[in-house]
Amino acid sequence: MAVDRNELRWNGWGKPGDQAHIGDRENLVEAWLKESLNLPALSRTPSVAAEDVALPNARLGPSLQSSLDDILGPGHVTGAAMPRLRRALGQSYHDILRLRAGSLPSAPDFIVAPGNADDVAAILDFCDTEGIAVVPGGGGTSVVGGVTAKAGPAHAGVVSLDMSRMNRVISIVPEDRVARIEAGAYGPDLEAALAARGFTLGHFPQSFEFSTLGGWIMHRGSGQLSARYGRAERWFISGRLAAPGTQWASESFPGSAGGPRMGDLIAGSEGTLGVLTDATVRITPRPESRDYRGFLFRSFEEGAAAVRDLAQSGIPIAMARLSDVAETRFYQSFGGLGKQPPNLATRLGMAYVRTRGYLDHPAALILGVEGGAKQVAQSVREARDLLSQWGALHIGRGPGRNWWQGRFHGPYLRDPLLDWGLGVDTLETSAHWSNLTHLYTAVGAAIRQALAEVTPAGTTPAILCHISHIYPDGASLYFTFIFPRDLEDPVRQWWHVKKAATDAIVAHGGTISHHHGVGEDHRPWIEVEKDGAALAMLRAAKRTLDPAGILNPGKLLPD
Amino acid sequence: MAVDRNELRWNGWGKPGDQAHIGDRENLVEAWLKESLNLPALSRTPSVAAEDVALPNARLGPSLQSSLDDILGPGHVTGAAMPRLRRALGQSYHDILRLRAGSLPSAPDFIVAPGNADDVAAILDFCDTEGIAVVPGGGGTSVVGGVTAKAGPAHAGVVSLDMSRMNRVISIVPEDRVARIEAGAYGPDLEAALAARGFTLGHFPQSFEFSTLGGWIMHRGSGQLSARYGRAERWFISGRLAAPGTQWASESFPGSAGGPRMGDLIAGSEGTLGVLTDATVRITPRPESRDYRGFLFRSFEEGAAAVRDLAQSGIPIAMARLSDVAETRFYQSFGGLGKQPPNLATRLGMAYVRTRGYLDHPAALILGVEGGAKQVAQSVREARDLLSQWGALHIGRGPGRNWWQGRFHGPYLRDPLLDWGLGVDTLETSAHWSNLTHLYTAVGAAIRQALAEVTPAGTTPAILCHISHIYPDGASLYFTFIFPRDLEDPVRQWWHVKKAATDAIVAHGGTISHHHGVGEDHRPWIEVEKDGAALAMLRAAKRTLDPAGILNPGKLLPD
Repeated sequence: MAVDRNELRWNGWGKPGDQAHIGDRENLVEAWLKESLNLPALSRTPSVAAEDVALPNARLGPSLQSSLDDILGPGHVTGAAMPRLRRALGQSYHDILRLRAGSLPSAPDFIVAPGNADDVAAILDFCDTEGIAVVPGGGGTSVVGGVTAKAGPAHAGVVSLDMSRMNRVISIVPEDRVARIEAGAYGPDLEAALAARGFTLGHFPQSFEFSTLGGWIMHRGSGQLSARYGRAERWFISGRLAAPGTQWASESFPGSAGGPRMGDLIAGSEGTLGVLTDATVRITPRPESRDYRGFLFRSFEEGAAAVRDLAQSGIPIAMARLSDVAETRFYQSFGGLGKQPPNLATRLGMAYVRTRGYLDHPAALILGVEGGAKQVAQSVREARDLLSQWGALHIGRGPGRNWWQGRFHGPYLRDPLLDWGLGVDTLETSAHWSNLTHLYTAVGAAIRQALAEVTPAGTTPAILCHISHIYPDGASLYFTFIFPRDLEDPVRQWWHVKKAATDAIVAHGGTISHHHGVGEDHRPWIEVEKDGAALAMLRAAKRTLDPAGILNPGKLLPD
Repeated sequence: MAVDRNELRWNGWGKPGDQAHIGDRENLVEAWLKESLNLPALSRTPSVAAEDVALPNARLGPSLQSSLDDILGPGHVTGAAMPRLRRALGQSYHDILRLRAGSLPSAPDFIVAPGNADDVAAILDFCDTEGIAVVPGGGGTSVVGGVTAKAGPAHAGVVSLDMSRMNRVISIVPEDRVARIEAGAYGPDLEAALAARGFTLGHFPQSFEFSTLGGWIMHRGSGQLSARYGRAERWFISGRLAAPGTQWASESFPGSAGGPRMGDLIAGSEGTLGVLTDATVRITPRPESRDYRGFLFRSFEEGAAAVRDLAQSGIPIAMARLSDVAETRFYQSFGGLGKQPPNLATRLGMAYVRTRGYLDHPAALILGVEGGAKQVAQSVREARDLLSQWGALHIGRGPGRNWWQGRFHGPYLRDPLLDWGLGVDTLETSAHWSNLTHLYTAVGAAIRQALAEVTPAGTTPAILCHISHIYPDGASLYFTFIFPRDLEDPVRQWWHVKKAATDAIVAHGGTISHHHGVGEDHRPWIEVEKDGAALAMLRAAKRTLDPAGILNPGKLLPD
């Protein structure tokens, strides 16, 4: 059962009225915000109503709709207002600002829902001939402007593909540990289908409830348990891509020296090279056992050294998520929002923890291990030994349980913050270990400085960070920052901080994105990220598959 | 200390006179061959002498050499006969046939040895202007015609790059577990430099003694211990590629969603997109412990099911090499050539082994595990448990030791076989597990049938096969076949079998190469291997980096 987008908020996360993740602790959150941000009071700044949004006029007319109907059969093309609104933008802070203000830069002329790869191919051929831009859409949860439904100046109009009808699990081959799944399958649906056969894909991004297989692959995403199941480009074996005039099945061998694996260009191409119609992915037996637990370090740097050692140890873990001091204190205050606060004091005796120096600059680690019961027990033992050698204090399963229960809840917090006159954005990067704390410091300072320039004097933004994806050679950094919103020009404020942070990232050796993608928002930096020859080859690939340039214009590649 | 090619055979493997790997057992080998191949006698068919080889005339003259000298400084350019002969071809059976016959299709006009990336760039710029083909050369051990020094019809001539001066380990960063190494570094040299810092790259192809980092990456190779250290494209993090008018540093982040990783196009590009000048690679602490041992299965199919289970179990092994019945019997006869025969009878009591059915259709497995001592012991225990559930008979460390000692010796056997009027070739592929035994049967049958068509009636070729690289989703197959050589037209005979085998591979879902590469020999099938869109993008990448088409013409891409 695919997610019904009509049941979701058009201007925020989840379903309307779903306050379950703050629940009855609204007062607590409000008090924390006022105190932490040093605000006398929180504003009340509701969104406009959907009916008050001025949708840009459609450029494609009814005869065009008839042609699309002829391709797909009746009932799969719409130009109605609400679907156009719902497919106009994604889920970035920038997107939500514009939705809540009712000020859209663009909207799709039609939303078109293909039923299979041949439908996609036929639509692309038609749009190629007609000069119509095509924006592929899965769950639409991009936070980098990856699904903005806009045409380029030369296009006749723009259609948005709603891939949600293409949600079948085509085949599961237990012997090969692979499944072939249509690109429009939502996370919960594909996991349910795999679970029925005893398997999991293991890809659990924070957007898991509302995002699709195709989106995960095409923006080169990473699930929370990437240490066990791998980033999208790791579990992605091969795919079928439809582009104007072609349907391409990429290489699908367990190992091959038959030239460069051209299928590697699919992950991260963000719909600019073609539309992914299905993918063959690596699957794993569902874990027999799970063990998630917490540790405290005396500093973020100490914790970072420990998780580096863990990443390089070969101990098979599923996740290591290390919060910096600010984020640790945030979680100490709320305990995963909507769950029981972990109440460290009760658990361990605050005096003991404090005496040992764990509360001066605390950095909390959530360690996750999954797999066979025996292997999990052993890996946890080995990991605990390793971490304790780095000074970690084991604080039990409570924090692990809180994290697990709240692992998809972060995005739900944004809407109430926006209602209170605040802004909240996230950004992420990665770097080699030898550069990681340097990058952490530089990016944090850039965000702080930029926010100081665009928020009222005397207020103090909350800037939180964690390491959540670890590799032998480096790790990711994920920043969240909460600040008083500029109610007059919040977009200008957003961009001021975004630009400063991303400039700092590229100046200090980080990637412009670890798992969010490029979209529109990181596009100004793609020429710094990709050396000239790389960008030239990517452009050449684009010209090869999409010579008329109809595919997701304005994303990934500079004009 | 780089390998000195002048000390190596110009027409075979290793150093002249190096018979150590057959040693005093020449009579035993000869007897086995006569009996196995059903030959009344072996011929005596020596190679021509080097001085009797007719080298093709050079097309580039002395003024060209002066220009190249000006770029590199004196002493790094030669057009002398022996270097030209040594850089004319690689080490395929086809190559050696032509070398031993003294019949070369082409030879480089000059051999040019750059000292650094700027030298390479300058040479490429010069050759681009002059329309001279450039063939990058590392150790020159390609077995697929990947280094044939030939010009295309439009080129003024051809130079071969001798990369062996570029053999520095530029940096080792223990904290990141990475090293940056120049592309011309030979295996033993780079391993020695890493070992001095406590690390290993862990890439040990059979050619290890005589092949280079750049070659390993550029043909997308795989070392014998790939289950632990990964294929070349797995440990290859980033590289610098020189192409005419450009030097490109590919992306180097631990994880990134900053668009497709264009550096993925380097591995497997075989010098057609540019010349790799250095690479940043993942390194691992040298293993504290190694455990290599043997097992017997009652059939190849039973063994294949067991190694599939092993590959999917998550038990961290370094290698699982499963021989089919013919190869198992071959090793039983020779015990790793030049070493003690394993003498199973003595070790276990032949009667016992036979009674339990292990000698009717025996399939031998060598299992290798490396790493920390404790982890190795435990992994071996777990692997033994798993294998015994599939009916494996543990036959101890002797076969493991034999394999280890002889692991680079296979190629040394070819020269005596050629001296005896025989032919020997190898080829390899990979497929998903669900298709593997089907592919094994089909390719074996195709080789047998093709050989029957081009060898004397009544003779019986030896066709051996093993699985040597295992993945969760599939495995490689490696065939070796020994047969009476057609002394009149051995090249025609070779191609007849090669074509039949490769046709069978692609018809039955295998890749044209698991780790040898494409070169000239697999080029006729690249259009079957790569779907049209993939090939079009690869051509577009080529045009972008090498618009004049000077880089390694005739390899990888169809004309």
